[in-house]
Amino acid sequence: MAKIENVSPLAPSAFPELPEIDGVTFATVEAGVKYQARTDLMLARLAPGTSIAGVFTRSATRSAAVLDCQEKIGKSAVDSAAIVVNSGNANAFTGSGGAESVRRITEAVATEFEIPESRVFTASTGVIGELLPHDKIVAALPTLSAALSASKMQDAAKAIMTTDTFAKASTAQVMVGGKNVSIAGIAKGSGMIAPDMATMLVYIFTDAMVEQTKLQGLLSELTGPTFNSITVDSDTSTSDTLLLCATGASGVVCDEDAAFKQALHQVMLDLAHQVVRDGEGATKFVEINVTGAASEADARKHALSIANSPLVKTAIAGEDPNWGRIVMAVGKSGAAADRDKLSIWFGDILVAKEGWVYEKYREEDAAEHMKGSSISIRADIGIGNCDSTVWTCDLTHGYIEINADYRS
Amino acid sequence: MAKIENVSPLAPSAFPELPEIDGVTFATVEAGVKYQARTDLMLARLAPGTSIAGVFTRSATRSAAVLDCQEKIGKSAVDSAAIVVNSGNANAFTGSGGAESVRRITEAVATEFEIPESRVFTASTGVIGELLPHDKIVAALPTLSAALSASKMQDAAKAIMTTDTFAKASTAQVMVGGKNVSIAGIAKGSGMIAPDMATMLVYIFTDAMVEQTKLQGLLSELTGPTFNSITVDSDTSTSDTLLLCATGASGVVCDEDAAFKQALHQVMLDLAHQVVRDGEGATKFVEINVTGAASEADARKHALSIANSPLVKTAIAGEDPNWGRIVMAVGKSGAAADRDKLSIWFGDILVAKEGWVYEKYREEDAAEHMKGSSISIRADIGIGNCDSTVWTCDLTHGYIEINADYRS
Repeated sequence: MAKIENVSPLAPSAFPELPEIDGVTFATVEAGVKYQARTDLMLARLAPGTSIAGVFTRSATRSAAVLDCQEKIGKSAVDSAAIVVNSGNANAFTGSGGAESVRRITEAVATEFEIPESRVFTASTGVIGELLPHDKIVAALPTLSAALSASKMQDAAKAIMTTDTFAKASTAQVMVGGKNVSIAGIAKGSGMIAPDMATMLVYIFTDAMVEQTKLQGLLSELTGPTFNSITVDSDTSTSDTLLLCATGASGVVCDEDAAFKQALHQVMLDLAHQVVRDGEGATKFVEINVTGAASEADARKHALSIANSPLVKTAIAGEDPNWGRIVMAVGKSGAAADRDKLSIWFGDILVAKEGWVYEKYREEDAAEHMKGSSISIRADIGIGNCDSTVWTCDLTHGYIEINADYRS
Repeated sequence: MAKIENVSPLAPSAFPELPEIDGVTFATVEAGVKYQARTDLMLARLAPGTSIAGVFTRSATRSAAVLDCQEKIGKSAVDSAAIVVNSGNANAFTGSGGAESVRRITEAVATEFEIPESRVFTASTGVIGELLPHDKIVAALPTLSAALSASKMQDAAKAIMTTDTFAKASTAQVMVGGKNVSIAGIAKGSGMIAPDMATMLVYIFTDAMVEQTKLQGLLSELTGPTFNSITVDSDTSTSDTLLLCATGASGVVCDEDAAFKQALHQVMLDLAHQVVRDGEGATKFVEINVTGAASEADARKHALSIANSPLVKTAIAGEDPNWGRIVMAVGKSGAAADRDKLSIWFGDILVAKEGWVYEKYREEDAAEHMKGSSISIRADIGIGNCDSTVWTCDLTHGYIEINADYRS
């Protein structure tokens, strides 16, 4: 695996200042799961009554930790809860030993904090196919317990990194009924890509009061236009995990609040964009906007077909406004299209209109847009009213270097 | 577009010796469509009564020539026929001008050879979005007519090349009822990849006597396990065209003959493999074999998911027996799988068995297999009896260079 020395050129200029979320504390430790001289284990402790919603990878080969979390989501929220995440070892494709490791960890955490096992959520990210040294994690629990603090969310963001070139977090404040509600989340992932190293994990916390089924509904709905609308290389991890925890400590009921929903959407989108901005080898952040499709599903198919096309992604890397490759990607998507109704823009530049190159198009205009680090491509299918937007990055020598030139 | 100076390291050692097929003649010319100092136009002339079957791209944005051919396939075979193919310009995404160019060419060919327009088949490959200078093609027809010869199939293979690094042909002889039947075909394509340059075109000729609907049935059936089982980068051209022409000149009826079918399969598979061997930037020829799937459709989904995964393809480029990425690709395919029943082989080396790394696996054994230029990967899903095999190549810096580092 490549040693990543340099921060992605697309990284945000600074780590955001995170608020403390009432009802959540964090601790991290150097457990020595695999990495040396860095933290690799984080614990989040959640107050009694915290609602927890989750969304997980749909991979048929998902990890033991994912299966365990999926079983627990939606159970009683009366007791306090804990989230334990290690980096360095994914505990994926480890046979029955994988489930055993999850059981040992959840059992020990339940004992340490006197909570039911059904309120302990774990995740692991790192190399796959190696048994997780769960004893090291169990042994670190008293240290974590003693170190818990509401101010350590940034430390948690760092402890879960693997090939990430920067720690990822986002936050929002929203007024609901004259009272302040906070949302803050952390994420790791350099794409939904390498199952051995680059799993996407996301943990979002809020002091809002939201009933669990409502919280799950919100999370599931907002995952579509955020985390499920990003792609680095079309590959999907076996361990992707997204948890949303509402402690209720603010006392503000946000079940149906539009402002809260909008703020949550903003935090999720920001975190999703940060994952793309840390895509392996990425030099361009790309927004693909499809309009005029026959259905929403068709719009999404076209957008993902463009975003996942190696030819489109290499053209962007080469700063080439190659609209022919957009035509190709729309054509192969499997969704309805009519060649002679298709129009394409790079940035604000209309490139192709109703099936042919636009008469006033000058390549130098589009080429100028392609030189930027934020690229936008729009394809109007011209046969309906449905839209979709997805985000991706370019495909560069850096991606080949990280994934081919070094042995794992 | 990259100037390809070097022949692919995976190219066959020599161009095959092609037989003359009774009832077919060829001619090529430097028409100057775009390229200078090389042939860029080929004509194949087919005897009266020749059955012609066709398979085409399913792209929703397919070219005018493809649409025209699709309309004509299956019509009366009484008259003689002609196939005209130019390289340098794909006549794709050219609005109504594209259909007009096809009409002008087919009209002129019909007049030149005194055949109905319904027996004239065209194809174009090269840059897209530029109007085809059809006048240059029309003007070259008398020269082509005067040059026709049964011995010029190799010239035809060269005239249709674009980014190909070698000309592609394959041939087989088969005895049917004590008489000899010949099959010979040519192909171009460096993958089903760049619509602007690397369309796949295939023309196969035989002196067998096969009724058109039978011929179409054979071609459609054999396209599945051959041309539809190869992938370079999952991108699909707007112009892919495959024609199979049976002149009947041998007088041997092969409608239901198993040996003929087998020989045809062999020629189609050889040509399909040659297209993969000329994949952009390819350094490894890769066979992916999936067994034990719940259905044939599932086996194919798993196989294509592995073959199209950028992470699997970069691992192969890096000679890394990274079985974790195979697990990931099986998991994300959408087809049924059970993590704990999955087994994986690199070459003859059993790497993972029933959900975990095989106890006797030594990485140096699999690493040795990965050093070769022909890689085979097998995944046994362990839940059924259905198989699928697909072929692909690795994803290298060469691919990025060809598609990103040079402007089109």
